[in-house]
Amino acid sequence: MTITITAFERSPDGGKGLARDTRVRWALEEAGQPYEVRLVSFAAMKQPTHLALHPFGQIPTYEEGDLAMFETGAIVLHIAARHAGLLPDDACARARAITWMFAALNTVEPPILDLVTARILEADKPWARQRLPLVIDRIRDRLGQLSARLGDADWLDGAFSAGDLMMVSVLLRLRASGILDEFPDLAAYVARGEARPAYRRAFEAQLAVNTGKAPTA
Amino acid sequence: MTITITAFERSPDGGKGLARDTRVRWALEEAGQPYEVRLVSFAAMKQPTHLALHPFGQIPTYEEGDLAMFETGAIVLHIAARHAGLLPDDACARARAITWMFAALNTVEPPILDLVTARILEADKPWARQRLPLVIDRIRDRLGQLSARLGDADWLDGAFSAGDLMMVSVLLRLRASGILDEFPDLAAYVARGEARPAYRRAFEAQLAVNTGKAPTA
Repeated sequence: MTITITAFERSPDGGKGLARDTRVRWALEEAGQPYEVRLVSFAAMKQPTHLALHPFGQIPTYEEGDLAMFETGAIVLHIAARHAGLLPDDACARARAITWMFAALNTVEPPILDLVTARILEADKPWARQRLPLVIDRIRDRLGQLSARLGDADWLDGAFSAGDLMMVSVLLRLRASGILDEFPDLAAYVARGEARPAYRRAFEAQLAVNTGKAPTA
Repeated sequence: MTITITAFERSPDGGKGLARDTRVRWALEEAGQPYEVRLVSFAAMKQPTHLALHPFGQIPTYEEGDLAMFETGAIVLHIAARHAGLLPDDACARARAITWMFAALNTVEPPILDLVTARILEADKPWARQRLPLVIDRIRDRLGQLSARLGDADWLDGAFSAGDLMMVSVLLRLRASGILDEFPDLAAYVARGEARPAYRRAFEAQLAVNTGKAPTA
């Protein structure tokens, strides 16, 4: 059955790989699954056809035969659970890898998204500059805890898993801010993720959409 | 094997059921699984013993034989996947129920948690009052979309699932704000969740800890 995902017709990041379709593309590349992409404009995302697929009017979505899903975390978990390469076989190790997926999305990403709120959505507000240090300190607290847990390991719990895929994807949002560089072990962890051939293919594929060029890979 | 979870020795909400152990208790009650609770003080949560279990120094955690997990979403999914009552058998319906778990935690809860940030963590800041309407409007946007999807249904996708457990738990955070009452269908949805015997048992159990009284159930 053909897998079809949706992605921005034109990503707000211009192709830096921060739009969430990159996470799903990466998971599909790790799993060795071909997929098709349907591009959606901002206007179309708020129309009934897309809202039927995604009630919050966002991307990505995932369609495969009778199945239609939204939410990046759920889609990546679905791919990881059905194909080899993203979750360990051992039941306990599998549960821990899924734990890291949720930790990335629920514990590490929220303060990072708040930086987007502070810097972009509220950039023109009178409190923008004064509030920023608070937001950044919350991120530093989380990164300090994550760094302490990662220690000298390459990945968060044994071999690379969907948990690492999600954590690297979340941390990538911080690169432009320079905050990641305050934690060299986490910067190296992110670089290991980016160096994976499956990530490169996913990145190039989303870049090609956003530049209108063919993949360079 | 005995299941042991952790919970606040004294919850910041004084027993209103908003601490995340209530979500895990609810899942265990729906699944009919007995469990033990180890209470943790705020000071102990930041000590090495607890950090070994939960790298971000929070509750709940989940221990069962060789398995140790953190992250509420991962724990509830683990319980739901192993016991009847929280996920449908049909593979597509199961994927959609898991989608709603992620939607609750990643799409609906973040703006709601920002209300806690605005009202409590940043209550003494000069921008607190001026920023609040922005935060509340973001919540209203999400609730409007959720309400449109729920429509006249009792639950988000067929029978009650772990997706509803998580969504109801997330929406409960809004009760005190009055925002939930602007969406009578969502208020009724939350009430249906609270009326479930398993929720009542979970609520009473956490209340007993926080009041030092035996459960009234």
